[in-house]
Amino acid sequence: MVIVMKSNYTPQQLEEVVKTVQAHGLTPHVSHGVETTIVAVIGECHTIPSDPFEALEGVESVKRISQPFKLASRQFLPENSVFPIDGFRIGGEEIVLIAGPCSVESRDQILKTAHAVRQAGANALRGGVFKPRTSPYSFQGLGEEGLEYLAEARQQTGMPIVVEITSQTQLDLMLKYVDVFQVGARNMQNFNLLRALGEIRKPVLLKRGMSATIEELLMSAEYILAGGNHHVILCERGIRTFESSTRNTTDINAIPVLKRLTHLPVILDPSHATGHAEYVPAIARAAIAAGADGLIVEVHPDPAKAFSDGKQSLKPETFAEMVRQVKAIAEAMGRRIAPVHSLVQVA
Amino acid sequence: MVIVMKSNYTPQQLEEVVKTVQAHGLTPHVSHGVETTIVAVIGECHTIPSDPFEALEGVESVKRISQPFKLASRQFLPENSVFPIDGFRIGGEEIVLIAGPCSVESRDQILKTAHAVRQAGANALRGGVFKPRTSPYSFQGLGEEGLEYLAEARQQTGMPIVVEITSQTQLDLMLKYVDVFQVGARNMQNFNLLRALGEIRKPVLLKRGMSATIEELLMSAEYILAGGNHHVILCERGIRTFESSTRNTTDINAIPVLKRLTHLPVILDPSHATGHAEYVPAIARAAIAAGADGLIVEVHPDPAKAFSDGKQSLKPETFAEMVRQVKAIAEAMGRRIAPVHSLVQVA
Amino acid sequence: MVIVMKSNYTPQQLEEVVKTVQAHGLTPHVSHGVETTIVAVIGECHTIPSDPFEALEGVESVKRISQPFKLASRQFLPENSVFPIDGFRIGGEEIVLIAGPCSVESRDQILKTAHAVRQAGANALRGGVFKPRTSPYSFQGLGEEGLEYLAEARQQTGMPIVVEITSQTQLDLMLKYVDVFQVGARNMQNFNLLRALGEIRKPVLLKRGMSATIEELLMSAEYILAGGNHHVILCERGIRTFESSTRNTTDINAIPVLKRLTHLPVILDPSHATGHAEYVPAIARAAIAAGADGLIVEVHPDPAKAFSDGKQSLKPETFAEMVRQVKAIAEAMGRRIAPVHSLVQVA
Amino acid sequence: MVIVMKSNYTPQQLEEVVKTVQAHGLTPHVSHGVETTIVAVIGECHTIPSDPFEALEGVESVKRISQPFKLASRQFLPENSVFPIDGFRIGGEEIVLIAGPCSVESRDQILKTAHAVRQAGANALRGGVFKPRTSPYSFQGLGEEGLEYLAEARQQTGMPIVVEITSQTQLDLMLKYVDVFQVGARNMQNFNLLRALGEIRKPVLLKRGMSATIEELLMSAEYILAGGNHHVILCERGIRTFESSTRNTTDINAIPVLKRLTHLPVILDPSHATGHAEYVPAIARAAIAAGADGLIVEVHPDPAKAFSDGKQSLKPETFAEMVRQVKAIAEAMGRRIAPVHSLVQVA
Repeated sequence: MVIVMKSNYTPQQLEEVVKTVQAHGLTPHVSHGVETTIVAVIGECHTIPSDPFEALEGVESVKRISQPFKLASRQFLPENSVFPIDGFRIGGEEIVLIAGPCSVESRDQILKTAHAVRQAGANALRGGVFKPRTSPYSFQGLGEEGLEYLAEARQQTGMPIVVEITSQTQLDLMLKYVDVFQVGARNMQNFNLLRALGEIRKPVLLKRGMSATIEELLMSAEYILAGGNHHVILCERGIRTFESSTRNTTDINAIPVLKRLTHLPVILDPSHATGHAEYVPAIARAAIAAGADGLIVEVHPDPAKAFSDGKQSLKPETFAEMVRQVKAIAEAMGRRIAPVHSLVQVA
Repeated sequence: MVIVMKSNYTPQQLEEVVKTVQAHGLTPHVSHGVETTIVAVIGECHTIPSDPFEALEGVESVKRISQPFKLASRQFLPENSVFPIDGFRIGGEEIVLIAGPCSVESRDQILKTAHAVRQAGANALRGGVFKPRTSPYSFQGLGEEGLEYLAEARQQTGMPIVVEITSQTQLDLMLKYVDVFQVGARNMQNFNLLRALGEIRKPVLLKRGMSATIEELLMSAEYILAGGNHHVILCERGIRTFESSTRNTTDINAIPVLKRLTHLPVILDPSHATGHAEYVPAIARAAIAAGADGLIVEVHPDPAKAFSDGKQSLKPETFAEMVRQVKAIAEAMGRRIAPVHSLVQVA
Repeated sequence: MVIVMKSNYTPQQLEEVVKTVQAHGLTPHVSHGVETTIVAVIGECHTIPSDPFEALEGVESVKRISQPFKLASRQFLPENSVFPIDGFRIGGEEIVLIAGPCSVESRDQILKTAHAVRQAGANALRGGVFKPRTSPYSFQGLGEEGLEYLAEARQQTGMPIVVEITSQTQLDLMLKYVDVFQVGARNMQNFNLLRALGEIRKPVLLKRGMSATIEELLMSAEYILAGGNHHVILCERGIRTFESSTRNTTDINAIPVLKRLTHLPVILDPSHATGHAEYVPAIARAAIAAGADGLIVEVHPDPAKAFSDGKQSLKPETFAEMVRQVKAIAEAMGRRIAPVHSLVQVA
Repeated sequence: MVIVMKSNYTPQQLEEVVKTVQAHGLTPHVSHGVETTIVAVIGECHTIPSDPFEALEGVESVKRISQPFKLASRQFLPENSVFPIDGFRIGGEEIVLIAGPCSVESRDQILKTAHAVRQAGANALRGGVFKPRTSPYSFQGLGEEGLEYLAEARQQTGMPIVVEITSQTQLDLMLKYVDVFQVGARNMQNFNLLRALGEIRKPVLLKRGMSATIEELLMSAEYILAGGNHHVILCERGIRTFESSTRNTTDINAIPVLKRLTHLPVILDPSHATGHAEYVPAIARAAIAAGADGLIVEVHPDPAKAFSDGKQSLKPETFAEMVRQVKAIAEAMGRRIAPVHSLVQVA
């Protein structure tokens, strides 16, 4: 059960709701969002009528939710969540394209890539500065230096920047630079990190773990939503299976399954989902045809020299061709690619 | 290495090729197809030059193949294999739609379904009569009675019929009725069956095993091709993974991977790949966007009463809506759905 | 529900049982075994009392079984099934060791191996003559010639022979030679083959498919049991997962899970389950420690020259060392290795 | 390639090694351990001879490593790593038993469990205080309060305590209480956490991620070793597969594979690996038979009332019976269970 408070509720009214929930032997979890305050009610509440809660002052509505995820459920919010990200909106009719290198490697590399992907049609710029690498001996990212280059790229191109966070200890630093916080597959169940991201008020792009079920992905989103941050974007990026001809197996089924279960925007990362640049355009098209709200794609000006993920990175011109194909599919779906940002300043 | 014989080669020339191969310590495997005879050369032939073979009389060309599959490889045949199936062609520009019930249950059921799917845009009719069922206590199919109903459906609608074969002992009976032989996921490595299907000259629709790699699928196709039957259609139908919200995980990556590795037509079965009717249209669209040459879809006039697979079967009207969506995606891909057959006889 | 007939039931009594089942809207499946005749009752029988069936003449007992597999269930037969195989018994206290090459390659090879494994402690001899190979170009087995060599090996060593059957069309030929019919992983759901093996009265060693669930393995056993052949041995041989350092992942959990769910004997194949000879002894020990009733192990006199599976085959001396280790574990489990056969004739 | 410095090397000598490595176009990674300092050489060093490095002053030896992990490799350290944990040694002949509840729930619960498992034969006590839970609405652990109860249990029973750490921000607090730091499956690739644990000098019990390969597990161990903490215990705890009759699939193959690849101690967690208390003893026995150095087992005085993982927790008396069985297997392996601690103080 989820109890939605009126926008003008008083602290006393909330306290009364909490007490009433507890009086029924249930556990209340209060979530203070920007626009709404919600009380998720946990426990065996199938047999308890919603009348006593609906009757309380300050209560807007009471919703029954059978799934273990509550705030993420479409039962809670039947309409799509649509929210703005600095210049466009995600989750609605528009398809959003996020592109950029795996790692920020240098000022020149990120500025060059930013202009190239913007020109090709991208709406936001990705780039990693804290890299979770399997080997301790691999390039681990530029850290704050990388954030500064990204900020410069944003200043020049107008594109918001999407950066992976790998620990809650990076949060204060990153808040100064980052527009969208990405949680990578390896951290999908880093619950300390998720809780910290529930406290901020910037969008979070949450990637599915490589062996996480769809339900587990939604439970991780629930951690962020329960903290009061309602701007979560879910991202399918391929799961680990026995098939070895691709880096991961794109779970394309996840797109319609997620769209049925949740109101949150859903995008796909065809770069990690395939691991080979040559398969990226086909899977990008498939994602949009299946109903995804956007794509996040790795693009590098010189993939052969990339510090990481070169094999799966598109050259800018291939990305441009991919955008043309995706545009055609989007139109067949009755949707359109979000418009590119106007250049703020030419490099 | 594959040695392609000229169309007018003599038996003596072929014998000489075989001897020369053996003289190099390699094994020749002669395959007599309808149009061409070829000699597959098996063994460690990376270091052996193709010159001595190319110089032999009666030899058209010699092709080097690195993958373990040879005849199925795009290195062997760079162009797409396009072949006719009673009224349309598969593997070319046209998208082919195969539809029908999981099992033939009665004369009325299959005739009703056949007319409904033809009207909605299907090009061929599917229907099982020998059902591989997990439980010995489940409905096992109508056998020859079912084949007769399918033949009647073909007579009325003009649509060729696609039927699963589960043992080589059914071959003689089925050859009297069936246009396309389907090999199900459980029989993808039933090598006795594959060898028997290599001997016939009707198309074979080969489904990927539920835990078969893409390379293993191609090796199974190789069994059929090596027998001289070059009309093999590959079908992705979902693989088994840890994800349990769908019956299988559609390996959408398999579409571009197969299109790169092989010249054979590739289709997708969104019914088995998802296991839920509500996800079928999204995955059907995704398959075409990813580059598939067709779809095979389960349709039943009354899914709730189906003897098998009711949960994943579309109602005729939902299938018709799916065809409209798929048509839009096909056009965005610069392709078109194959035209429906003219009615031969109204029921 | 399963209805067990008395040993001296009359055909009229059986007919009456069948009619009574049908009168309740349920489906009877009659299974004529060597010792008992059983009627498996399929359908929604939760709410139907067993009294009317128990009261019928000729009925020994009525058992309620909630699992989809009936005759394989421990609910049907609470005690372990123990049955003889030419010189020893499987399923009881004794641990049974089956050993031999992947393929019979020559008379000399199989006789040499047979004597070596007998001397090391093996109770039965394995050897394939119809090989299911991924590639059509690989060695496919010696066929009947191989069976003759195996028969000679049995004559000399006294050991029963275990041979894989890959098609019901091989049954008549094999019945002349074979003591235990092995169904390989790729044929676990070849239902035509399973039905044929339900008709014979020789033991069947049923291997788990590489992506089959434990329940599916038991359903496949049910096909054989339902045919009246009650001597089925289940074999775990590793499942397909993402882990690539071994050929398969030994599902050691399957041993205690199967021992809980079924009364049938359970053995393990550490050769296929690991794919590397060096890991075979450790997994053989683990299997016995987990409660397995036996092992089937690949042994070859010269693994480097084996036509197939050389990488995972033990040398005879390594097998002998493995038997010593397994013996120690068996004793720690309060069990013993079945005694070796007396030599019938020295080669 | 790994360059091992002599124990009395000078800073100038180390600097020279670093420069020489760089002069070959390779990257040196210096790791200062308690006993030795080593320089891991990263890059394509297959073709570079080790002579120039071996000739340098201050160098003890140079070892060629082919796997991506270096310090964890048995090529680097051919003998087993054996190290002390407050009262016993792990990695040698002795089998180590770690037991306790999933979560510390109360002072009474943990003290009761501690005494029960010590009496049954356990060598160390486990108990979680920061619980990584799939749902934000589940019990998240007692935090420092739980650590205090654990410390009291240690004081009474003499057993060292093993506690899971889920973020590097907990490190300072936990260092005051914890003897062995456990990294859970979900954090196996939380590289910030691994780096932090490389800096401390207490043993780390590193659990395999639920879809991590064996190589990835070793790469994560490498993070800790590269920081200079050489006391890492690896733990197999089951991997995620399609099989649903158990919570995870115990990868028993991982035991002999790890023992071949690495010198580090390897233990198994049969509780998470099966998810059902009734299967735990069988898999515990199998682990020891396969060569594991110990076990970590969930035990709860009243599993039905456990806040978490009750289904897979053993009652103290079942654990005692399991220890008896494991003891017999250990002896068959020529090993013994480590002796229990003398009681420091009776509760």
